[in-house]
Amino acid sequence: MSIKKIDHLAIVVADLAKALQVYHHALGLSLDHLAEEPLEQVKVAYLPTPDGAGEIELIQPTTNDSGVAKFLAKRGEGLHHICLEVDHLENTINELTAQGLEILGNIRTNQRGDKYIFIHPKSAHGVLVELCERVPS
Amino acid sequence: MSIKKIDHLAIVVADLAKALQVYHHALGLSLDHLAEEPLEQVKVAYLPTPDGAGEIELIQPTTNDSGVAKFLAKRGEGLHHICLEVDHLENTINELTAQGLEILGNIRTNQRGDKYIFIHPKSAHGVLVELCERVPS
Repeated sequence: MSIKKIDHLAIVVADLAKALQVYHHALGLSLDHLAEEPLEQVKVAYLPTPDGAGEIELIQPTTNDSGVAKFLAKRGEGLHHICLEVDHLENTINELTAQGLEILGNIRTNQRGDKYIFIHPKSAHGVLVELCERVPS
Repeated sequence: MSIKKIDHLAIVVADLAKALQVYHHALGLSLDHLAEEPLEQVKVAYLPTPDGAGEIELIQPTTNDSGVAKFLAKRGEGLHHICLEVDHLENTINELTAQGLEILGNIRTNQRGDKYIFIHPKSAHGVLVELCERVPS
């Protein structure tokens, strides 16, 4: 199995507009688009770096009872998870499970059609690690 | 000013060897090298992704009183900071300071000769953001 790249890092924020003042306007990251991800109950601002080298996602909860909303309430704004792109998600999950890593839930599909799943932080030294398999763009 | 890429993300761990079992052996990230960074009082495992698209750094404190050691004692293992590569670090600092962002301390230089500095998390929605200017390799 092989990791292709750091696909994105996600930062949970209370207010997308305020966070964009820092990450888009001050730091100068481009804003590709904004979108809702109903499955995760968040609004997302997608801020890619040049040449497809990974993006920063600012995520704001849209409800009070999602995992992201609870994270924000408990820990405040900050880094939420990292996502690594793999070639074949199902094979990767099988290999990791065989090595004793705990996978959270089942494969999900985002609005763009990409497949993704999370590794439990206790299996990844405190980090919520997402694995994704991108659909060809 | 412009961000060139996500240079790396740093994960603080209690034991590099154990963390490498997950990030190197199970997830299959390549291990470029291990090094000490005396200035930050850490040992680092450098795990690049292919094609120079950013790396994961596992950092283990080598003393009990550094910022990283205190982070580990207080919050446990997990994501510590992200690093964005810029073209010209001094210009970037001047622009960010003019926009009211708080910069921590002065420019430092790592063992490889790269220059770096940190933005205060309160100026970046809870994220410790490192900015670096790489020396040509």
